[in-house]
Amino acid sequence: MMIDRIPGGVTAAKGFKAASCAAGIKYAGRTDMAMLYSDAPCAVAGTFTTNVVKAAPVLWDRRIVYDVKSARAVVVNAGIANATTGEAGMETCRQTADCAARALDIPADSVLLGSTGVIGPNLPMDRISAGVTALAASLSDTVEAGTDASRAIMTTDTVNKEFAVTFQLPAANGEGNVTVTLGGMSKGSGMIHPNMCTMLGYVTTDCAIDQALLQRALSAVIQDTFNMISVDGDTSTNDTLLVMANGLAGNAPITEEGEAYALFVEALTSVCRDLAVKMAGDGEGATHLLEMKVTGADTKEHARMLAKSVIGSSLVKAMVFGKDANCGRVLCALGYAGVEFDPAVIELYLVGESGTVCFCRDGAVQAFDEDAALQILSEKKVSFTCDMRMGGEEATAWGCDLTYDYVKINGDYRT
Amino acid sequence: MMIDRIPGGVTAAKGFKAASCAAGIKYAGRTDMAMLYSDAPCAVAGTFTTNVVKAAPVLWDRRIVYDVKSARAVVVNAGIANATTGEAGMETCRQTADCAARALDIPADSVLLGSTGVIGPNLPMDRISAGVTALAASLSDTVEAGTDASRAIMTTDTVNKEFAVTFQLPAANGEGNVTVTLGGMSKGSGMIHPNMCTMLGYVTTDCAIDQALLQRALSAVIQDTFNMISVDGDTSTNDTLLVMANGLAGNAPITEEGEAYALFVEALTSVCRDLAVKMAGDGEGATHLLEMKVTGADTKEHARMLAKSVIGSSLVKAMVFGKDANCGRVLCALGYAGVEFDPAVIELYLVGESGTVCFCRDGAVQAFDEDAALQILSEKKVSFTCDMRMGGEEATAWGCDLTYDYVKINGDYRT
Repeated sequence: MMIDRIPGGVTAAKGFKAASCAAGIKYAGRTDMAMLYSDAPCAVAGTFTTNVVKAAPVLWDRRIVYDVKSARAVVVNAGIANATTGEAGMETCRQTADCAARALDIPADSVLLGSTGVIGPNLPMDRISAGVTALAASLSDTVEAGTDASRAIMTTDTVNKEFAVTFQLPAANGEGNVTVTLGGMSKGSGMIHPNMCTMLGYVTTDCAIDQALLQRALSAVIQDTFNMISVDGDTSTNDTLLVMANGLAGNAPITEEGEAYALFVEALTSVCRDLAVKMAGDGEGATHLLEMKVTGADTKEHARMLAKSVIGSSLVKAMVFGKDANCGRVLCALGYAGVEFDPAVIELYLVGESGTVCFCRDGAVQAFDEDAALQILSEKKVSFTCDMRMGGEEATAWGCDLTYDYVKINGDYRT
Repeated sequence: MMIDRIPGGVTAAKGFKAASCAAGIKYAGRTDMAMLYSDAPCAVAGTFTTNVVKAAPVLWDRRIVYDVKSARAVVVNAGIANATTGEAGMETCRQTADCAARALDIPADSVLLGSTGVIGPNLPMDRISAGVTALAASLSDTVEAGTDASRAIMTTDTVNKEFAVTFQLPAANGEGNVTVTLGGMSKGSGMIHPNMCTMLGYVTTDCAIDQALLQRALSAVIQDTFNMISVDGDTSTNDTLLVMANGLAGNAPITEEGEAYALFVEALTSVCRDLAVKMAGDGEGATHLLEMKVTGADTKEHARMLAKSVIGSSLVKAMVFGKDANCGRVLCALGYAGVEFDPAVIELYLVGESGTVCFCRDGAVQAFDEDAALQILSEKKVSFTCDMRMGGEEATAWGCDLTYDYVKINGDYRT
């Protein structure tokens, strides 16, 4: 199976257009609204925050994904999250969708919505309306339009996140293969501890695939991608990941699990993992990408729990920031993951481009080369590997270090 | 029922002595070892970390509490945690207890041990032995000896923690009442997210009470005291809370639940809550004590989960540090507590000495007086109250803010 990385993001697949604009919702001097549009109706799948407090656009999108199951467009704003806004927030959703529906000549219940930013305030409807009108008038299928959209949805992100891939599937007309494209963008830097999916993420593909299978693929893929990252342990009120498939690639529609479905899952995994890891490395204030790989676990779920426990530990995160090889903290975080294991047999390594340092063997911390550890801890990506020696399952989680800038950014976010 | 606060800590109760010394284990220019000793054998109860990776002294103490059920002395060191030290760590425990047993002329299995500090290194046995000998020779029942002991067990703590109370119980000889005293000390500043108990805490009492009831009282009391605080979400490898009761007060022994037991539980709660709250307020780098009170919950356990979720949120903690009334983060943290509730009915208040500000009513964030909120957020203690409007249960949790100094302390802890 071959998955090829190509440039671009949400406009990479056939029939998808994007636009962005500066609507002046909160930020000055930058774009803060984006629109995605498909020339053809899309099967849509989604996963949403498990937070009991769900933002209005999450409630709106859930209805479309669960009941309508198809969509044509997405409207996203940055700056204000439209969360804990009560009935007024839902009315804003209705008006935004109506506005987009008129401008694009599509049904209002085919318009998905996304918001990110401060929790509490209401969205300024006049600016949103003006933004939607401007966006609808400037849709473009260029790579640049997709890139600009990925920038417009950023909040405290320091870099935009977009990836795209292609792969080959049998053609619908039976004559050889066609190229299928899948691309995505996401934003997220703080309040990131997804539990079903993460912050805002949008994946578009021209693959022809049954809606139920699309949802099944997404639900499987997020377990080892977006659900394996954490910046600060805070599960947002707005987490939304949507996948839209318009079928314009011309492949024989995927209607059951099999070779084509497996290839699609592999492509979706590739884009989602790249987006998720890039989000983790761009966590608020981060200076390092933190990776924890657990091998030899008895179950897949235990491997995930162990890996996530380490990348969620404030003490491990602060130690990575300080380049301090205080590896006992990694063992401690494994120990409170909620998984039974035998501390007397595990092996823990620090792995970098410059080499590998063994921290722990048979449950006892080993003497190690401090200089070698410091050199690895000075690299941009800091990776730990722990062999639990219980079985054959493994998982990897990604996070970032805890820095002065994280505190600074979040001590004064509203102003 | 009357519980009276008195000065002092672990030496307040009859028949308890304490000592401290500078053993030079890690720190220079300060004491780092402490000993507690009872003139009479004590019923002992304990709770310990739920971390799978348990430090050697935790394994040692569990055996004494669960099997021997009585004790005479405690030896504690600060600087090195004797955790992830394998068989060598257990041998250190055996030698330390043997050394104390010889010096005090008591059985080795009546000597409890506690260690706190860096995970990984082995303890220097020669210094520990010399320390134990010096401690045994300088035991004193003065208030000052107890206070000095509470200082000797500090690590990154900035203040020592000790509290004591007295109450009246019927005398064993049937002639009126006797005064019963209960006092305690604890240490803890980072790696604090107790799950069964917290860091190191020692409570001594001259109350005569059955060992099984003592354990029952402790297990009940920690649920709303030590288990309701968090500094950083990291459950330590060394968490230990011990209660020793030597019966020297002369009260009619408590052998069943009833009025006397209830009064004892109230006294134990009082000391444990005061110690716990003081630990939360002295969290590493903290500038504020953070309190979250949940009322109107459907069950006690849900009230606890909701309150703990808020005080564990990095974003809430950073916002309190920045004195930023970004109250949506409190609602968000309630939402991912793992408890179902109706966001459309809850009420959230910021409560301070200077007044009260309503942040949220009927699920929608309210316009509020920013100056009044800033004034409350400028107080040392920042308190939120949320009425879930589901039932009659409540709980309170305590934590602290997330500051530059937390990152600084934990980015470079070993050196």
